[in-house]
Amino acid sequence: MRAEVLTIGDELLRGEIVDSNKSFLSDRLLRIDVETRFHSSVRDDPADMTDAFRRAATRADVVLVSGGLGPTRDDLTIAVLAETFDRKLELHEPSLRTIEAFFERFGRKMAETNAKQAWFPEGAEVLPNPVGTAPGCLLEAEGTLFFCMPGVPRELFRMMDEEVVPRIAARVRPVGGTVVRSTILKTFGIGESTLEEELSDLAREEGLSLGFRTTFPDNYLRPVARGATEAEAEARLATLCAALQERLGSLVYGVGAEVTLEAVVIAALTAAGRSVATAESCTGGMIGARLTSVPGSSAAYVGGVVAYANQAKIDHLGVDPGLLETHGAVSEPVALAMARGARERFGTDFGVSTTGISGPDGGSAEKPVGLVWVGFAHEGGSAAQDFVFPFDRERHRALTTQVALDWIRRHLAGEPRVAARYLEARPAGVGGPPGSDAGGKT
Amino acid sequence: MRAEVLTIGDELLRGEIVDSNKSFLSDRLLRIDVETRFHSSVRDDPADMTDAFRRAATRADVVLVSGGLGPTRDDLTIAVLAETFDRKLELHEPSLRTIEAFFERFGRKMAETNAKQAWFPEGAEVLPNPVGTAPGCLLEAEGTLFFCMPGVPRELFRMMDEEVVPRIAARVRPVGGTVVRSTILKTFGIGESTLEEELSDLAREEGLSLGFRTTFPDNYLRPVARGATEAEAEARLATLCAALQERLGSLVYGVGAEVTLEAVVIAALTAAGRSVATAESCTGGMIGARLTSVPGSSAAYVGGVVAYANQAKIDHLGVDPGLLETHGAVSEPVALAMARGARERFGTDFGVSTTGISGPDGGSAEKPVGLVWVGFAHEGGSAAQDFVFPFDRERHRALTTQVALDWIRRHLAGEPRVAARYLEARPAGVGGPPGSDAGGKT
Repeated sequence: MRAEVLTIGDELLRGEIVDSNKSFLSDRLLRIDVETRFHSSVRDDPADMTDAFRRAATRADVVLVSGGLGPTRDDLTIAVLAETFDRKLELHEPSLRTIEAFFERFGRKMAETNAKQAWFPEGAEVLPNPVGTAPGCLLEAEGTLFFCMPGVPRELFRMMDEEVVPRIAARVRPVGGTVVRSTILKTFGIGESTLEEELSDLAREEGLSLGFRTTFPDNYLRPVARGATEAEAEARLATLCAALQERLGSLVYGVGAEVTLEAVVIAALTAAGRSVATAESCTGGMIGARLTSVPGSSAAYVGGVVAYANQAKIDHLGVDPGLLETHGAVSEPVALAMARGARERFGTDFGVSTTGISGPDGGSAEKPVGLVWVGFAHEGGSAAQDFVFPFDRERHRALTTQVALDWIRRHLAGEPRVAARYLEARPAGVGGPPGSDAGGKT
Repeated sequence: MRAEVLTIGDELLRGEIVDSNKSFLSDRLLRIDVETRFHSSVRDDPADMTDAFRRAATRADVVLVSGGLGPTRDDLTIAVLAETFDRKLELHEPSLRTIEAFFERFGRKMAETNAKQAWFPEGAEVLPNPVGTAPGCLLEAEGTLFFCMPGVPRELFRMMDEEVVPRIAARVRPVGGTVVRSTILKTFGIGESTLEEELSDLAREEGLSLGFRTTFPDNYLRPVARGATEAEAEARLATLCAALQERLGSLVYGVGAEVTLEAVVIAALTAAGRSVATAESCTGGMIGARLTSVPGSSAAYVGGVVAYANQAKIDHLGVDPGLLETHGAVSEPVALAMARGARERFGTDFGVSTTGISGPDGGSAEKPVGLVWVGFAHEGGSAAQDFVFPFDRERHRALTTQVALDWIRRHLAGEPRVAARYLEARPAGVGGPPGSDAGGKT
């Protein structure tokens, strides 16, 4: 079965947005052993859309179309698809009622243009959209299956998983072929090429493979296993995953595409009955924002201080003004005092702090842009670790946040406070050697 | 001039990576008035690549090819391009020496396979790659210009800007034709379909158009104007933008693809010499994180408290425990007390607060999931406004953050504290009517 993913929208061709729908859709197809042969995008232009539909019909068995289902004038997917394959448009009454109900639920009247979203090509099967107003549809034309889905990622993701994948899988399976199973291992603290070198011997067997992908600041591993049956593919995948986890140890923080480091941290804190407070300078609230993105995080996270200005560090975390004067805000003593202050003032088991120079300005010869101190306080003492992350402001802050979250996870797991490999990026002469928390400054 | 962007690589079709090269390349083309008509991707498969090259030659004047220039066996772009258009491969001696020098610089010996990167189709112009081993090339075939570039983003970006754009621009300009200018107007507080209805009369003239795009929680407008000269296109765009801004007023918070609400807020605060502190419950640090993402934000933002637990609201913002007991954390008096507490305790001109039920759990009949109070304190008093945002946790928090940031902007501009239209989403019976800050609770 050959698949094509076709996304539609002027904004794509103008380069206004990065099209992440294509990779999502191809990934989902791969999980049911359907190979994507072509990715295409065209503007909201009827002639180009018609060409794209015609060509897709000649070269693909299944075409996933995303975008152009909205209520506005430039949303043309359904109308052009119908015309391309000589189908009339028919009103789908249940969809019209669903769209009306959707607006009613929010106390609004449906705009006239929204009614357009209830018209489909004759012979099409309508696919429900539980999280938006645009239903999708499946049209079979010239032997090819066209699945039309919304372009809004969260609507697309759900429709793909709940409506489209089962319909494709039902047609793939009877034909036979191997079953594919894969997952994602999320790692933090090791580089992609190091990963590839260290793991290259583990997926050499026929039917096993290992993909690598950097999603800053993490690196993801994708083990893939094939088998004659689902059970066989799953067993081979489990064996491969176990070997990878044994090799990588605590560098793997989670398994599965959906897992996040913040969710792992909240779960570990909750399981241990421990709590944490944050003291953020350069990250400005990012650690708190990540932790509170997890439903139920109030069991383990009580809050913290965003201490961006020095006076806020003094007033709200009890940092001694003398430390700031002597060592500067970006220093080990201040990171330690911030972490301790958060822990004491919020009455938590742990306190975590960040203070750094995320750039683009503010560096000096002694303290370059990119320097950051992360602090951690617990019942047995406190420690701080410095890094120089040579990245732009956004990535500097994201990486610092990840280090802070990972420190909580590592502390709870009894691991060294940082993975030695993050330190590969650190120029010689800045900061001390990596060490375990036991060896930290108390 | 019609352009196509063609990216090559198995990893794209397997959905392992999100292809951000396409949006980069199309954006760069747009800046020199070249419209991208097609995006395509194919696997590292000679037959599919040949088809893609042939088709591109029939429908595009310029084709930007990215990927497949590396040293490995599956890097086939140059060889297949040459074969498709019946060209021999020729060794380009200067490139071979550059590649050898590149390896020497890092103290490594050039691998045999890297020599492959110095072979190009006869008649091609070689494009240097100052940051990698794979040079690019320009081949003109069947009247179409094929620019081959590496897939590694930083190598691609540089080659595009330094080698490719000037060559295309040189060919575009002398030919004449219309010049296109466009920009983006970012709006918050009005729905996409309402926008389209209200603005549909403004871009009816030949050569003007208006696009709409939702980037939650904002809606973006893209006015486009054509003219015979740059001056004419720019003047027409300016006229259209002025008409849009007049119609929309304070719903437009910024102009240009790069502008962010947080940058607008920091700039407005800095210009006015005012400062703000945050008191975040349900947003957990997101407002602080957004504000501190702006370089130079320390001029206007001093910090705040993430008061996720009730005790944190009492201890660190001075919220009266009686208020929490009587009204609950998600209430007008608590939102007001949090905003005032932040302002007073951090010694700032303004304080902004959030307290809400972002879900998925925690709601009740009286206080449903989605309810949120946003508070704002200033020298003249304080006010709070409630909303019910019927979205998932992530979007609830993002929208609440946006409302809080927008309130600062609106206050500084002397505008009503919220755009009346956000309230379209609020079910009847929850909260009071929208009003200006002057009428707020003090």
